[in-house]
Amino acid sequence: MTDFVCDYNVGCHPLILRRLEQINMVPTRGYGSDKICASASEKIKKACNCPDAQVEFLVGGTQTNQVVISSMLGPTDGVISAKTGHINAHESGAIEATGHKVIELEHHNGKLDADEVSSYLETFYGDENHEHMVYPSMVYISFPTEYGTIYKKTEIEALHKVCKKYNIPLFLDGARLGYGLMSPECDLTLSDIARLTDVFYIGGTKVGALFGEAVVFTHGNRPKKFVGLKKQRGGLLAKGWLLGTQFDVLFSDNLYFDISLNAIERAMELKNLLTKRGFPFLLDSPTNQQFVILENSFFKKLSALVGIEFWEKVDENHTAVRFATSWATTQKDIEELAGILDTI
Amino acid sequence: MTDFVCDYNVGCHPLILRRLEQINMVPTRGYGSDKICASASEKIKKACNCPDAQVEFLVGGTQTNQVVISSMLGPTDGVISAKTGHINAHESGAIEATGHKVIELEHHNGKLDADEVSSYLETFYGDENHEHMVYPSMVYISFPTEYGTIYKKTEIEALHKVCKKYNIPLFLDGARLGYGLMSPECDLTLSDIARLTDVFYIGGTKVGALFGEAVVFTHGNRPKKFVGLKKQRGGLLAKGWLLGTQFDVLFSDNLYFDISLNAIERAMELKNLLTKRGFPFLLDSPTNQQFVILENSFFKKLSALVGIEFWEKVDENHTAVRFATSWATTQKDIEELAGILDTI
Amino acid sequence: MTDFVCDYNVGCHPLILRRLEQINMVPTRGYGSDKICASASEKIKKACNCPDAQVEFLVGGTQTNQVVISSMLGPTDGVISAKTGHINAHESGAIEATGHKVIELEHHNGKLDADEVSSYLETFYGDENHEHMVYPSMVYISFPTEYGTIYKKTEIEALHKVCKKYNIPLFLDGARLGYGLMSPECDLTLSDIARLTDVFYIGGTKVGALFGEAVVFTHGNRPKKFVGLKKQRGGLLAKGWLLGTQFDVLFSDNLYFDISLNAIERAMELKNLLTKRGFPFLLDSPTNQQFVILENSFFKKLSALVGIEFWEKVDENHTAVRFATSWATTQKDIEELAGILDTI
Amino acid sequence: MTDFVCDYNVGCHPLILRRLEQINMVPTRGYGSDKICASASEKIKKACNCPDAQVEFLVGGTQTNQVVISSMLGPTDGVISAKTGHINAHESGAIEATGHKVIELEHHNGKLDADEVSSYLETFYGDENHEHMVYPSMVYISFPTEYGTIYKKTEIEALHKVCKKYNIPLFLDGARLGYGLMSPECDLTLSDIARLTDVFYIGGTKVGALFGEAVVFTHGNRPKKFVGLKKQRGGLLAKGWLLGTQFDVLFSDNLYFDISLNAIERAMELKNLLTKRGFPFLLDSPTNQQFVILENSFFKKLSALVGIEFWEKVDENHTAVRFATSWATTQKDIEELAGILDTI
Repeated sequence: MTDFVCDYNVGCHPLILRRLEQINMVPTRGYGSDKICASASEKIKKACNCPDAQVEFLVGGTQTNQVVISSMLGPTDGVISAKTGHINAHESGAIEATGHKVIELEHHNGKLDADEVSSYLETFYGDENHEHMVYPSMVYISFPTEYGTIYKKTEIEALHKVCKKYNIPLFLDGARLGYGLMSPECDLTLSDIARLTDVFYIGGTKVGALFGEAVVFTHGNRPKKFVGLKKQRGGLLAKGWLLGTQFDVLFSDNLYFDISLNAIERAMELKNLLTKRGFPFLLDSPTNQQFVILENSFFKKLSALVGIEFWEKVDENHTAVRFATSWATTQKDIEELAGILDTI
Repeated sequence: MTDFVCDYNVGCHPLILRRLEQINMVPTRGYGSDKICASASEKIKKACNCPDAQVEFLVGGTQTNQVVISSMLGPTDGVISAKTGHINAHESGAIEATGHKVIELEHHNGKLDADEVSSYLETFYGDENHEHMVYPSMVYISFPTEYGTIYKKTEIEALHKVCKKYNIPLFLDGARLGYGLMSPECDLTLSDIARLTDVFYIGGTKVGALFGEAVVFTHGNRPKKFVGLKKQRGGLLAKGWLLGTQFDVLFSDNLYFDISLNAIERAMELKNLLTKRGFPFLLDSPTNQQFVILENSFFKKLSALVGIEFWEKVDENHTAVRFATSWATTQKDIEELAGILDTI
Repeated sequence: MTDFVCDYNVGCHPLILRRLEQINMVPTRGYGSDKICASASEKIKKACNCPDAQVEFLVGGTQTNQVVISSMLGPTDGVISAKTGHINAHESGAIEATGHKVIELEHHNGKLDADEVSSYLETFYGDENHEHMVYPSMVYISFPTEYGTIYKKTEIEALHKVCKKYNIPLFLDGARLGYGLMSPECDLTLSDIARLTDVFYIGGTKVGALFGEAVVFTHGNRPKKFVGLKKQRGGLLAKGWLLGTQFDVLFSDNLYFDISLNAIERAMELKNLLTKRGFPFLLDSPTNQQFVILENSFFKKLSALVGIEFWEKVDENHTAVRFATSWATTQKDIEELAGILDTI
Repeated sequence: MTDFVCDYNVGCHPLILRRLEQINMVPTRGYGSDKICASASEKIKKACNCPDAQVEFLVGGTQTNQVVISSMLGPTDGVISAKTGHINAHESGAIEATGHKVIELEHHNGKLDADEVSSYLETFYGDENHEHMVYPSMVYISFPTEYGTIYKKTEIEALHKVCKKYNIPLFLDGARLGYGLMSPECDLTLSDIARLTDVFYIGGTKVGALFGEAVVFTHGNRPKKFVGLKKQRGGLLAKGWLLGTQFDVLFSDNLYFDISLNAIERAMELKNLLTKRGFPFLLDSPTNQQFVILENSFFKKLSALVGIEFWEKVDENHTAVRFATSWATTQKDIEELAGILDTI
């Protein structure tokens, strides 16, 4: 069945699998202290144009958010997130489980507004009465957001400035980073991301890898005892080179960007296809996730033929659904969808 | 200086101090396993008209919220609170520090709306996709709220019904319970509170005691190993009878209610006084906290002469302040305030 | 270089890699809700002879211990472990990070003694004074242990009996389960393990898989909301079928046991080789880890030619080292070691 | 009944109660930001001969240990304690509940041995392989210990030196500090304690106060955001001046030391009394707790007439019990005990 359910529904790019086969029986040092991880780190630092960066590999997104955030906050500190942020809404309380509050601010199509963040911080730090409140000590954003939207360069610059002013880190969750960077509406480079954030991660799970996320501490600011913290949170992979290998392949020959671009091109084809047929969209997403509003009866018929995801109820008769493309989506998938739409 | 800063600015009711003197040198068993605590528990159960209740004493409000909530939630569970709820806004992340998310819903003058709680729970439990979200497994309300407002009986009945439907406990924070119950607008009795909630606490710190809160599990539902949990959270007082003694006095001869009524009568006098002089109120509070809007220059002059608390900025030129009365406020205090207002 | 450093120094059994290739581009449901995981679960239940079992897959050992233990303990509960137990000594405080104490008892070549466990529990539950202590509410053992030793059937039966008496679960960490079961000294079957424990896990990372551990709740006792807990602890793999696939292969055609047996046969050859040459052993291990005492100068020379792991200092002039075989160790590896030993 | 059950079985020194009465109706600022707390802090700093110290008040011992330890450790850090240390054995896992391991070392009559601490730290920090272990990042001792024993000055100096070498803080739990300092065998002053530790606390609960402990950070090393941390752990008393007042009285006119001395003098009388009558002691305690071995039948008879505490079984026929004197014990109490012993 043609499948647009999500961007983690198939395995990995064939080049990764090939490399895993090549090294399968080669004895390698454990826990990420191997040469492949070192090589992948170097390639990532180069791609970020960021020689002082420190790169760490983890297995999945929630784990990454949990390890990074808990490693950078003190016991009374919390992290600011949009109400819709992944850490606030869809990680089963992984941040709170480490003892930290997620401080939710309003979202604007999934994004935080720098002025609103600034106001919150100003109130907090400007008044003597806030010792009984959680210290807002980090700002978390995702790029793209849960709604597929992306920040403009000026927006991230503004958040960067606010964070600098209050001397708190800006953390960017890049579970789908490639799909953001390759969007036609994106005016940021990977190098900009590295320059404007204190820590971010490059998602592998949703962008060509079997699993794995590469965290980049952008200016030598990796917390001490970080290996211990990864271990403590259950995130230190024994065969760490499996992570290094995947990112080494992804960051060779521009692969990460090329396959991200494929997802975007297919998404734009899909968007055109649906737009032409008159389907309304929940919002205007420039990345690989497209949120479309369907009549309930049509939704029922379509979902029997194509893999799509229920997103939310719009009203009694309408449902918003998500179509996700990925590095693996083909033009043939889009054509099949077109064919199916013609038959319903 | 006349002082309306808060309701915890003086010691305790003289009868309590007298009793503490009387028993000061009498050897007594530690950790709350003494006869005075047992006596106080019985009096509270009687006042609640709730023979199956189990009473536990703790030292302060944040500690009580932390111990109660963490004792009743599983590891992936969270507690619903109004955005302005004390646990969400003013306890330095005490709930999150035990690993649990505070799930904030909108407030209406400090109160939760039962329909909105119901909608949230319905969405959560009605859909298959929520395994990645924190389970809303308790509802927390306060009575009175942070804004001095109180729930009507029908409102608490509605919340009770919602909680029953989803089989989750309703917890009422009664740090100022007496001031709520004695409000002229209150149509609930202590017995109603006990009947309509699963657990609540009777505040002592702000209502006549030096310190101390009495938790009431209303139907034999005290979590197992509760003494251990109090100990673990640093809330098990070695000389537990200090808590029992205070509540034993407060729940003798209607004292708790009588002194609560005093606070309310003084608050109403204060409200009249300010209303007559034309001061606008931030909202209409029927309890011991009154929120008044002052011109900034007037605020400056007044606060040099009377103890009041900054609450929030209203606009460039106006500030909301809080006047709090308590069991200890006298008519003379009100008269002095009137005199001061005349002179400014 | 011939490598006996550890049992997680190469990738996975070739059959697993082949299967991963076959399904690489097949769209599959996420988070372990797929048919491959279901199939693997069934095979494991059958191998355990345990139709009421519930199987859950996780990525690594520390994560598994953390998720399982924290899911089965209440807030004041702790878990009993041998002083040398992995959770007590080598997981960076992963259990404490979830709020639970590891209660250490003495070890006997890595093992707990059932009588000592019983005495501890008897003292605890027999006396009124223990409310200030952590409740020992689970017993954790590993099979094989950190020292490669294994429990006899009578020993596990005794632990099982003690746990039943005090109504607390017995949890067996089987990170190297295959290597224990295939030991010539083992008188237990997988079915015995399932019958005598409440929960255990079958290690994949060290026994033929790239990564992955299969948890078996042996009698329908999987904690509620377990998916949420996996998510919260960062252990819910998006592409969960990667775990299911690996175990599906391992539990087809007896593969898990056959490759485990290979590790044991190579370990016994290695043991003979070293014994014949007169090397003393730190202790007598019947499984794939062999602990040998070397003169420091010899250790230095040998470790330049063969991968071995420093274990501990024995005295000024001697060092204990570990040789580990695995499913991937070949007779040729053993022969090469013999050759090297001849040349030093 | 004559009562030697514990040193927290009566209220407080009458001077404290008198002062509480005097200030009972005086409006005072909340949360410890008042002048009485400031005055008490100054007196304590002076008594410690430690002008750079920072003093913080908390309600009870477990709470104090929890707040202090969790405020000074990073997420992967643990605290070294004697196996018998209060935090390890009798606080219901309060330290682990904040995510930190208590690393237990052997005790010697309740005390840590500096050489053994040094060896542990040396092994840990001297080897590359310890990233998977909890970092020993603080040393916790109590003075007197659980067994009433005290450290010699040379012993604390040795611990101080070890901690300095590894750059980790030394924390002294002084729940019964006065009783240690006033022991005839003590060669340390309060000023020595302040000089040789990084943080310690002066117990009030067991030494003349109703409740309360005064934490002393000895060299300007109070952790940032400490008020917030107290709040988060449920330890920020609304009427903070209740704590300040008690310590202000205790540290006026040498009261704390004088009443501590009384406890020691009574303890020595009690020790002589029991020694003369031929009772064996579990160990030789120079402070206010005396551990005596009784025949079971004698124990039964005695405990019907005098309050004493069961400590542990010695053998089939003998039981160790604790007699505790306190600031409130009188010579008459000792005489009554003598009379009772004569009659059994």
